[in-house]
Amino acid sequence: MTALGSAAPVLAPRVLDRCRALVQPALAEAVGRLHPWVGEMAAYAFGWCEVGGAPAAAPGGKGVRQALAVLGAEAAGAPGRAGVAAAVAVELVHTFSLLHDDIMDGDAARRRRPAVWKAYGTGPAVLAGDALFALAVETLAARPGGPAAVRTLSAALGDLVRGQAEDLLFAARPWTGPERVRPDEYRAMAERKTGALLGCAAALGSVLGGAAAETSAALDRAGRHLGVAFQIVDDVLGVWGDPAVTGKPVHGDLRERKKTFPVLVALRTPAAPRLAALLESGADPQEAAALIEQAGGRSAALTEARRHLAAVEAALTAVPLEEGAVTDLRSLLGFLVRRDL
Amino acid sequence: MTALGSAAPVLAPRVLDRCRALVQPALAEAVGRLHPWVGEMAAYAFGWCEVGGAPAAAPGGKGVRQALAVLGAEAAGAPGRAGVAAAVAVELVHTFSLLHDDIMDGDAARRRRPAVWKAYGTGPAVLAGDALFALAVETLAARPGGPAAVRTLSAALGDLVRGQAEDLLFAARPWTGPERVRPDEYRAMAERKTGALLGCAAALGSVLGGAAAETSAALDRAGRHLGVAFQIVDDVLGVWGDPAVTGKPVHGDLRERKKTFPVLVALRTPAAPRLAALLESGADPQEAAALIEQAGGRSAALTEARRHLAAVEAALTAVPLEEGAVTDLRSLLGFLVRRDL
Repeated sequence: MTALGSAAPVLAPRVLDRCRALVQPALAEAVGRLHPWVGEMAAYAFGWCEVGGAPAAAPGGKGVRQALAVLGAEAAGAPGRAGVAAAVAVELVHTFSLLHDDIMDGDAARRRRPAVWKAYGTGPAVLAGDALFALAVETLAARPGGPAAVRTLSAALGDLVRGQAEDLLFAARPWTGPERVRPDEYRAMAERKTGALLGCAAALGSVLGGAAAETSAALDRAGRHLGVAFQIVDDVLGVWGDPAVTGKPVHGDLRERKKTFPVLVALRTPAAPRLAALLESGADPQEAAALIEQAGGRSAALTEARRHLAAVEAALTAVPLEEGAVTDLRSLLGFLVRRDL
Repeated sequence: MTALGSAAPVLAPRVLDRCRALVQPALAEAVGRLHPWVGEMAAYAFGWCEVGGAPAAAPGGKGVRQALAVLGAEAAGAPGRAGVAAAVAVELVHTFSLLHDDIMDGDAARRRRPAVWKAYGTGPAVLAGDALFALAVETLAARPGGPAAVRTLSAALGDLVRGQAEDLLFAARPWTGPERVRPDEYRAMAERKTGALLGCAAALGSVLGGAAAETSAALDRAGRHLGVAFQIVDDVLGVWGDPAVTGKPVHGDLRERKKTFPVLVALRTPAAPRLAALLESGADPQEAAALIEQAGGRSAALTEARRHLAAVEAALTAVPLEEGAVTDLRSLLGFLVRRDL
């Protein structure tokens, strides 16, 4: 596609590994300060242990947020370690949101293991999420002179929760008619639910790295657009992706009647009544997928994703940033949304 | 009992009303910034509306925490309005913790109405709690120059969650033997679960009122001891209190097999085996209550509560505080624990 991510398949895993190595000791130290029971649930969520505490090497997350925080500090000309507190905070917030979202969405599995609420119970999972949330704030607040950092994090927290509220409410709204979900509402939801924390990660790293306000704002903007692009590409893969590559069931999002971007676009065309009936009946996801594609849902989604990737690029060139960090950032962005765009 | 609270029945409601009037507009403004759906759940929890949003005048909390924050600012010599952001933050945190604790404890009712999770569902109640938590941090972080304030709040948040974890785990432990819950463990739990936020409220108000570090520390200490005293008196009332006064079922805590302070003390005496058997069978709470009293559980609890009230008084006289605020603080403390000690 574009310059974004051309070297990604090679570079990105190295970047992720480097940042993980830098952040992991501080993250483990923070989690180690939790009540042991809560700490075990957190460690399980991070893939560090099994239920009961036995060590595990389960797949944790990719660690994109911690990498963005480290690279944010480096982009501001500071050493990567300046961004470590930011990295710890955003990883804790991300894990908190996964724990609670899985409860709200009734998702029983996460990264091919039982979700925390399935493994430990709903109440304990609520508590573990709260503990991670509190620990994230504490981690940042403990750093001297970081009021801007806490403000940056708390704004993202607010957006995260608002985005989740919007997403939950979308499910209850009709496919068609004046109450239907408009694509621009979806875009705003995705920016809050996914983009806000990605933007916060990079911005927070840069704040701790001593960046000027406009540098942090540009990195925040880049992360927010990245989040929207990522979410929309994820939607496309949820309908047309190869299950062997995505690890998701074919047409899973259609079977679950998710109001994804390609669907919402197709519902604005004359195909809407037939598509709505198909989706509602859940009868033949293959037919629905074909109809969405004919109605232009797939191509509109890819165009929208490209538009947001261009906005990422524009944000990264709007302010002076340290060159090596920008190369690493680009590889990450490409890695995140490279999948058959 | 002591000087504490001698004028409380007259003064305290006036103090609570005055502080509520000062805080309410800012609290309503903050809640009004939430997503409307989440804001309705929050307003329901505060007693401002019914399910669906119709205005209500349901009993909210007593507003002790917001009053402590206002009085903390006044104690530091600032006008009460200096403590309003602290008051808003601690009321939001308190309500967040009620929402999530009711889920964890399976408590279906709160203040004679269905708990939020019963009225709106578990997932939405998790979300509403998260939103209040995020809003609390945002409210404090938005104030210029408040890193000490965010640190004070985040330390209390950590304690709150740890105290709740400890409380949940107490339920699973045996009545007797080496794994039984010791009274000092209970005290530490109560300080974290109840005392930390009371202490935080007064300390945070004083921080925003420009207090010296030792003044805030003394107010924090006073609130923590108050929390332990309150919890232990609550335990005594849960066994021997008059249901007409407490609004709780007679012997309710015994029927629910709660590991309260008087019970834990009695379990350290030779009465332990018989008491454990009685509590486990749930047969005759009246007999258990009598046995706990004979074993000295009631008097030990009252002694312990008085000890913590004396520590509150010692903390309040350890630093110079504005006199009028201290009178109001004393009336509040007396109001909270005055009940037939």
